[in-house]
Amino acid sequence: MAQAETGRPARVLVVGAGAIGALYGGMLARAGAEVSVVCRSDHDAVAASGFDIQTSWGDFVFRPAHVLRAAADVAEPPDYILLAVKMVRGVDRPALIRQAIGPHTVIVLVGNGIGIEQELADAFPHNELISVLAFVAATRTGPAAVRHQALGRLVMGSFPEGVSPAVQRLASLFAQAGVPCDAQPRVADARWLKNLWNIAFNPISALGGGLDTQAILAPAEGTEFVRRVMREAAAVAAASGSPIADEVIENTIASTRAMAPYKTSMAIDYLAGRPMEIEPILGNVVRAARTHGVPVPGLEALYALACMVQYRDEVGARAV
Amino acid sequence: MAQAETGRPARVLVVGAGAIGALYGGMLARAGAEVSVVCRSDHDAVAASGFDIQTSWGDFVFRPAHVLRAAADVAEPPDYILLAVKMVRGVDRPALIRQAIGPHTVIVLVGNGIGIEQELADAFPHNELISVLAFVAATRTGPAAVRHQALGRLVMGSFPEGVSPAVQRLASLFAQAGVPCDAQPRVADARWLKNLWNIAFNPISALGGGLDTQAILAPAEGTEFVRRVMREAAAVAAASGSPIADEVIENTIASTRAMAPYKTSMAIDYLAGRPMEIEPILGNVVRAARTHGVPVPGLEALYALACMVQYRDEVGARAV
Repeated sequence: MAQAETGRPARVLVVGAGAIGALYGGMLARAGAEVSVVCRSDHDAVAASGFDIQTSWGDFVFRPAHVLRAAADVAEPPDYILLAVKMVRGVDRPALIRQAIGPHTVIVLVGNGIGIEQELADAFPHNELISVLAFVAATRTGPAAVRHQALGRLVMGSFPEGVSPAVQRLASLFAQAGVPCDAQPRVADARWLKNLWNIAFNPISALGGGLDTQAILAPAEGTEFVRRVMREAAAVAAASGSPIADEVIENTIASTRAMAPYKTSMAIDYLAGRPMEIEPILGNVVRAARTHGVPVPGLEALYALACMVQYRDEVGARAV
Repeated sequence: MAQAETGRPARVLVVGAGAIGALYGGMLARAGAEVSVVCRSDHDAVAASGFDIQTSWGDFVFRPAHVLRAAADVAEPPDYILLAVKMVRGVDRPALIRQAIGPHTVIVLVGNGIGIEQELADAFPHNELISVLAFVAATRTGPAAVRHQALGRLVMGSFPEGVSPAVQRLASLFAQAGVPCDAQPRVADARWLKNLWNIAFNPISALGGGLDTQAILAPAEGTEFVRRVMREAAAVAAASGSPIADEVIENTIASTRAMAPYKTSMAIDYLAGRPMEIEPILGNVVRAARTHGVPVPGLEALYALACMVQYRDEVGARAV
């Protein structure tokens, strides 16, 4: 059983109970944590019967300790807030959790992209912040149903670096539940490494109008462009203190070429007309490049196109 | 009246009787030329009642001297072949006209893009070639109906340079008909200048998923990217012997910003799933840049994305 230093179970509040939040929140509950969730649109379904979680770790129903409509409804501040929301523009992530945070609450951020921790570190400078990478394929299959399709490993560390006791405690909870979990002192390195693929394939797949990995790599021009963009990203990573070995790029291209054609999350969002994770995956990288004086003309081109698409979609949305 | 040196009217064969071919072919007929057309899909409609041409130069019906199903059906080689087809991949343009060409036939190429003359110059090295730019907005409104919406000026010259007697004769025919027409000894310069806009706005509008000019220029990132791409294109133009004055770029951006939101032909083709003029507008510029050793990372990014989209569309088309 997971016990805090005080002997009581860890109290966890999940904010953003989509596929990732519900799956990992549910796994923490299985490890004995007291896990509540903030659910707006699905509140009644989840309150009535919990989440139906289908996972290779064993199917189960995750019944949260409390199902809240907003973070402000917590009875007392949790030990951990697990924030697992899409990193799109126009969402005030600090506001989503501010009213649930106490002086000792640890913020656990699960999400794609580079530099996504900073806005939370700025908003809550006195709270500990844990950065988490989820190597997982999971989707919502209904209002309170999640299917975990493949993989599942977590990598986590203190932001900006280190492995605090709070990280160790969280990692051991996941490990108890059977989730492969690595605590790493340099989580930023892992974040750059994981996002090298995302930085190239996500924007290209979306701006090509929803291309899969095969259509991206099949033309010689496509492979060469992916290579160029990954090299630019690796140069920014190196300038940011997280060097990436040269062979990683070629290995990433080769392994992507070997896998079945795959459509990225950004391509799927693009095709569905939903907001895309442009800033964490692309904008933050371009800004880091500018800060460090690293030329990234390929990434700049992708970012400019993505900004235009976002502008069009936001103007279009306002016009409705 | 237009008379050849022999005293007979100029014989013109229009190949590609879309909006541009029918409008300008019709205007040559109004000037007294004997104008025939090659029409495949619309043959019967055009043979029955000619083209209905609505134009600010005065509406008229253009009844071609002969309506042919293929270039091979000409009774004798024309003085001029006016080739006005979309410059898309997979079309063998020399084959479209080869069987109508005699030793003295002058090829008149009307089309968008850079370097589009070379394939015809290579295929017909002993025939004179005239390169024409049409500054015109015209659309087909039916199988044998064309509406000329705005502008209309032609710029033409011998390829690769000069103003031959055949150019002068053609220009004076157009002038007789009331079409503003400039013969220029350096038509390549005019081609670069006209296509500076196309090179930036056409691919960006398509790859942004059908963006209009406002969505492209409204975000600061968008204007900056347009500027960067135009500067790259201007550098290629200069290396190719057609320098473009610096202020042209800022003037082009400013005048585009001032006009009503406009969707490029490539954006319209993209949205309709039709082949796009990628190679003349973008690919040939990228190849010229490589030849001259001019770095064009923004254009390379656009071209790589466009190649992926084309690959996807062609594979998709083959799979149907």
